[in-house]
Amino acid sequence: MSKFWSNLAKQATPYVPGEQIDDEEILKLNTNENPYAPSSYVLEAISQELGGNLRLYPSPTVDQLREVMGEYYQLEKECIFVGNGSDEVLALSFMAFFNPGQMIRFPNITYSFYPVYAQQFQIPYEEVPIKDDFTLNPIDFYESEGGVIFPNPNAPTSLALPIEEVENIVKNNPNNVVIIDEAYVDFAKQTAVPLIKKYPNILIVQTTSKSRSLAGLRVGYALGNPNLIQALNRMKDSFNSYTMDRLAIAGAIASFQDDLTIKENVTKIINTRKWVTEALRELGFQVLPSETNFIFATHPKYLAKTLYERLKQAKILTRHFPNPLISHYLRVSIGTNQEMEQFLNQLQEIMENLSPINEKKQ
Amino acid sequence: MSKFWSNLAKQATPYVPGEQIDDEEILKLNTNENPYAPSSYVLEAISQELGGNLRLYPSPTVDQLREVMGEYYQLEKECIFVGNGSDEVLALSFMAFFNPGQMIRFPNITYSFYPVYAQQFQIPYEEVPIKDDFTLNPIDFYESEGGVIFPNPNAPTSLALPIEEVENIVKNNPNNVVIIDEAYVDFAKQTAVPLIKKYPNILIVQTTSKSRSLAGLRVGYALGNPNLIQALNRMKDSFNSYTMDRLAIAGAIASFQDDLTIKENVTKIINTRKWVTEALRELGFQVLPSETNFIFATHPKYLAKTLYERLKQAKILTRHFPNPLISHYLRVSIGTNQEMEQFLNQLQEIMENLSPINEKKQ
Repeated sequence: MSKFWSNLAKQATPYVPGEQIDDEEILKLNTNENPYAPSSYVLEAISQELGGNLRLYPSPTVDQLREVMGEYYQLEKECIFVGNGSDEVLALSFMAFFNPGQMIRFPNITYSFYPVYAQQFQIPYEEVPIKDDFTLNPIDFYESEGGVIFPNPNAPTSLALPIEEVENIVKNNPNNVVIIDEAYVDFAKQTAVPLIKKYPNILIVQTTSKSRSLAGLRVGYALGNPNLIQALNRMKDSFNSYTMDRLAIAGAIASFQDDLTIKENVTKIINTRKWVTEALRELGFQVLPSETNFIFATHPKYLAKTLYERLKQAKILTRHFPNPLISHYLRVSIGTNQEMEQFLNQLQEIMENLSPINEKKQ
Repeated sequence: MSKFWSNLAKQATPYVPGEQIDDEEILKLNTNENPYAPSSYVLEAISQELGGNLRLYPSPTVDQLREVMGEYYQLEKECIFVGNGSDEVLALSFMAFFNPGQMIRFPNITYSFYPVYAQQFQIPYEEVPIKDDFTLNPIDFYESEGGVIFPNPNAPTSLALPIEEVENIVKNNPNNVVIIDEAYVDFAKQTAVPLIKKYPNILIVQTTSKSRSLAGLRVGYALGNPNLIQALNRMKDSFNSYTMDRLAIAGAIASFQDDLTIKENVTKIINTRKWVTEALRELGFQVLPSETNFIFATHPKYLAKTLYERLKQAKILTRHFPNPLISHYLRVSIGTNQEMEQFLNQLQEIMENLSPINEKKQ
């Protein structure tokens, strides 16, 4: 700390991203990346843009991408906002729709960036306890004072709230914005996008990082009523007018034009998720029914933290959260079939060499 | 406006970027882009990264780029912060170093994003009048209550404050951060970078958009004492942890490894600036002695606004600011020699067809 820091800088509790270790030998199952490469059509489109005008500013309104996305989602481009990853879109959304002095609500087990944004923009928040089975109780989010945000499917639990319940939350917050963070929705049964035409107060945030294999390109977006999108644009143009570079724009356009590759990859991941879930259950794990590209699992006889550490020693990275409500769980991203076999073999070996009785302290 | 907007969204006065018209036939001399393509080494590096792991998140700490830049600037990587364009770096700097309730100072003629940031983060500001010759009076920036920010060279005036005067401003604000926005410094005589080792309260913000021909890639950065950089990182990780994509990181690394191409392009632009300045003076313009890649010029007999409009009709875009203090000036980015000949010929033709007497209303 220093006398030169603003109060904001002094008081901040920054987000801690998952470990990003640059070691080719490590099997990364810790940050929910897609194990499959992006579509070759995307790579070609970026390559072509590279031969273009990188010396010129990109379009600050990113109209071309928003038009292509509009066709994809059957929405006007005025219903679409794009930004530098969904984290940026979420940060701008906190600024655009939530107010200091008006309590917002999000689940007590959720994406850990929400309380960081709330603190950063001085927005009071209530962490609504989720149920023992890790599902949300929709009624707890009705009639909020300042707004609601939750991921659906939720992270890190991997569970999805049925769309009817999402609609009930939106309907019962008529004076506030309800933000549905759908980062993982392409791996789930349903999206809330159809609700946009029915409700002026729903904002849906998605990303190209997971299902579209473009975590390295930083493209996130929000879908909602043009009136909400306008507020996001006002916040963007009060912060950084050119958030998306030319290559990211070109790659994202191509990605929304080639949905086939994405659908194929998503199907492969869902199939892998299915057999890995079964295999873990055979090893004695309790695995939540995931609608994401990761699984959230706990074992009655082994500490999740120990398993995480042993896996890390064996060069397999998973994620473990110190929060006592979920510290007995391990979050594991879904890789290729081969990667998941490697993970399961290693896990089995670790468990065989651990004493279950000594470890059972939870 | 709407009941769903936050007070911040309602009260914002967003920045208005220069026109970005996607028309190959237009000669763009309005947003100070570099007329020369980026180094082929940069394009190759990006191409190579494209064949890599775009499916994986980039490094949130961007260590490799910061190390390469550290060698370039002879600074530890702990003295370097990188972000998604210098606008983002400036926005985070306002959050990190300036406080609501403590008046900051910047010139009354300057980059028009500063008052936008100040309003966005509720930081009171004093717009310090510059002198009649458009230079800053250094003493006016001494002993500020909450900090100082100014571009050097200044935009849109194109004038640079001598480094000794910059040092005096830094020295006379011992309890506050002084931000020097050096977006155009590569076209100027001197940078304030050597002051970083002497003063803990100077932060220098630069960009790859101008001298490095990478406006389309969105890479900006700040240089300063590690203590200041740490505060910037805290703000970044309270907003968006992964601001730079993999391709931007790869391109920026290559750019700092190939300084020769950049120096060649900068020299060409400075030489063009020289003869264009002379040619404009021959046409009766008063041209400020530019240390940037643009010129700021006024004509005693023709309205700048009319010249801007006529040039635009002829498909040459320049920039005109409605602010009455500078509304009699035209800002013109330096293009290639050929482009500037085209500009000058068109300008001369326009002036020949305008009646100087009717136009002299200023």
